[in-house]
Amino acid sequence: MATARIVDVGRFVDQDVEVSGWLQARRSSGRLHFLIVRDGSGSIQGIVSARDVDPGLFALAGRIGQESSLRISGHVRADSRAPGGFEMTVSGLTVIHEAHEYPITPKDHGVDFLMSNRHLWLRSSRQQAIMRIRARIIGAIRGFLDSEGFTVIDSPILTGNAAEGTTTLFSTQYFDQTAYLSQSGQLYVEAAAMALGRVYCFGPTFRAEKSKTRRHLTEFWMVEPEMAFFDLDDSMALQERLITHIVATVLDRNGDDLAVLERDTTALERVTPPFPRITYDDAIEKLRALGEEITWGDDFGGGHETVIASEFDRPLFVHRYPSSIKAFYMKADPARPELALCADLLAPEGYGEIIGGSQRIDDLALLEHRIDEHGLSREQFDWYLDLRRYGSVPHSGFGLGIERTVAWICGLHHLRETIPFARTLDRLYP
Amino acid sequence: MATARIVDVGRFVDQDVEVSGWLQARRSSGRLHFLIVRDGSGSIQGIVSARDVDPGLFALAGRIGQESSLRISGHVRADSRAPGGFEMTVSGLTVIHEAHEYPITPKDHGVDFLMSNRHLWLRSSRQQAIMRIRARIIGAIRGFLDSEGFTVIDSPILTGNAAEGTTTLFSTQYFDQTAYLSQSGQLYVEAAAMALGRVYCFGPTFRAEKSKTRRHLTEFWMVEPEMAFFDLDDSMALQERLITHIVATVLDRNGDDLAVLERDTTALERVTPPFPRITYDDAIEKLRALGEEITWGDDFGGGHETVIASEFDRPLFVHRYPSSIKAFYMKADPARPELALCADLLAPEGYGEIIGGSQRIDDLALLEHRIDEHGLSREQFDWYLDLRRYGSVPHSGFGLGIERTVAWICGLHHLRETIPFARTLDRLYP
Repeated sequence: MATARIVDVGRFVDQDVEVSGWLQARRSSGRLHFLIVRDGSGSIQGIVSARDVDPGLFALAGRIGQESSLRISGHVRADSRAPGGFEMTVSGLTVIHEAHEYPITPKDHGVDFLMSNRHLWLRSSRQQAIMRIRARIIGAIRGFLDSEGFTVIDSPILTGNAAEGTTTLFSTQYFDQTAYLSQSGQLYVEAAAMALGRVYCFGPTFRAEKSKTRRHLTEFWMVEPEMAFFDLDDSMALQERLITHIVATVLDRNGDDLAVLERDTTALERVTPPFPRITYDDAIEKLRALGEEITWGDDFGGGHETVIASEFDRPLFVHRYPSSIKAFYMKADPARPELALCADLLAPEGYGEIIGGSQRIDDLALLEHRIDEHGLSREQFDWYLDLRRYGSVPHSGFGLGIERTVAWICGLHHLRETIPFARTLDRLYP
Repeated sequence: MATARIVDVGRFVDQDVEVSGWLQARRSSGRLHFLIVRDGSGSIQGIVSARDVDPGLFALAGRIGQESSLRISGHVRADSRAPGGFEMTVSGLTVIHEAHEYPITPKDHGVDFLMSNRHLWLRSSRQQAIMRIRARIIGAIRGFLDSEGFTVIDSPILTGNAAEGTTTLFSTQYFDQTAYLSQSGQLYVEAAAMALGRVYCFGPTFRAEKSKTRRHLTEFWMVEPEMAFFDLDDSMALQERLITHIVATVLDRNGDDLAVLERDTTALERVTPPFPRITYDDAIEKLRALGEEITWGDDFGGGHETVIASEFDRPLFVHRYPSSIKAFYMKADPARPELALCADLLAPEGYGEIIGGSQRIDDLALLEHRIDEHGLSREQFDWYLDLRRYGSVPHSGFGLGIERTVAWICGLHHLRETIPFARTLDRLYP
């Protein structure tokens, strides 16, 4: 008999086939057992009828516990009411490994319990859907950038210089030196952009922040594109196309997963260019008009981001923040030197900042001055300064946070479900 | 005037166009300067003739230093002798930033000097070619696995358990706990395979090894696919198709880069299925016949790998090593329980092991016993043991080292050139 992954069962309508997987759920009704079997590629309902199978097999089908692994064989029928469109009349059932008292049941569990059992929780339909959408987002980003002529450049995790102070860095003994875990690959992709033009790094980044908010993880993934000869406007236009592509790809390919998550897709369908762009000045004015206590020169909190983004129905660029609240390497706006040529992209529906980006300082003396101003060491940045010594060019880049993007697209309140094994202040297990 | 990336200049034959980039090299001959300009997408020769441009511009073209950034404009001509197939008769030249005394010149430099200037060295043709091939390999792996129904699952870097002892692990203070930098995501992808069937992680891994060989980095990238319901043979067949796909993709898309590296591509063209498969037993016998000093039960050194692989003209599987020299989680061969159901894939031409893989133990009691035997803690592995408590299934997986694969395909002796910013025993900068 042919074997198939559940996603391919449709090729075997009116034929016999065997599938292997796990017992996701069972419903029984007198002389019928309905087994929902999943194998990671999909789920299918297998109908075991006392009329068709011998009593031992029928009893077995009614007894085995949730998450037992098994093989079922039988006749495939198209049924538009069935999830996936097909079901199977079971004629054979082999239990591979019987599970007893699987810890995660359909009843409610506390979040801490679920996080401690993350290795099992991943099997639930919701968590599978999130992981599939996360994978789709990652694939869409890489596919988009590769098709735009970018070269992926993996920046190092272990770095010798504690670029902007050590307070939020994890450190490790590196033989007879101290190394820090990277918070950003930006400085390295700037170097690579001078070699390859358009590059990106895509990897884990680390922040030793003692915060317990739903918007922070200590280990999170970020994609950081960097483009030679791009100004801020070029970069924002690229971001707009990237975000539009990601959302369109998920809507196109992961409709079933979004349905499992009960995500309102109309909000996602509105994500089309152009995205609104407002200045920091205007954002402050708008926030004050909306009754928020904020003064020009303040950075936004998560609450401010939610309030301002709620005024728009699609992602919102806020650009030209005061340089004083932004990183040392950002180029000043020639028209108003107290402002940085930077932009954050705020997701709609209260999901906060998903991108931060800027045009970089390309003048050596100015960058040296900013390094001094920020109390940083020129020596540690010597290699980075080389990029302004030898063929400096206008360039821009940005960082897109994967987990925040997954949270927004999946409609999840908390980042902990957006990554396979979340790391937070008090969680390092499993 | 239109602007173009150099890769797209062919669309502007017999038209005027402007390109921006860096001065890679210059050759002068009387009243002609030949400027090789690169922008990361490609290189083009711009011909500056004293007949066509004013004397100031001609003098500038003859004076600016290597790696100066500039814009040139002019008329595009097809010329089959030119690298890339096109050249440009320059009518305009703007220097963006003049570089003086660029440290890396066409003369020979020591490796240590080049590694210390890695941020600049990346601009050389060879290093660009390597980075483009590395990016292609990464894209080919992800594309292949995604098309085979795999879901990417990013395993955590920070882990609470020091799986196989702490001697080769980097550690960090994680608030009031100790965390270790991951050497492998395998245990995590095993959990995810029970949820999603076919998964892989793809990220940096770390090994605090005090070795200074050309085959070791302290930070390196690995892809680790894990497949439920795959036995060792299924896994080897998948590896064979993956490696074939990678090599074919690079041959198809990166011919120019392989030419820059002067790679003998005939050796790569032989990489087609089936790959030879020999047992560890046979490998030992063959090695002894070839005069190597090795006894049954010994692990292979790099030298042994080279000797045995040289007997074959394509990648070679060596399977069923003694369990005693392999990891605790490998399933025993039922036919000969002293052997593990494992296989290493050795690259041809002396590039050594690029894949290690195995079928995993799926029996709870047996796995507990192996954990005890290896002096490991059952408590630390409790979550991993859960995978054998609840719906255990036969499953297999493997790890492919990216840098070793890049070294083999590019024909590089040393791993340090296969990653943008290599980390070795004594190198953490830049």
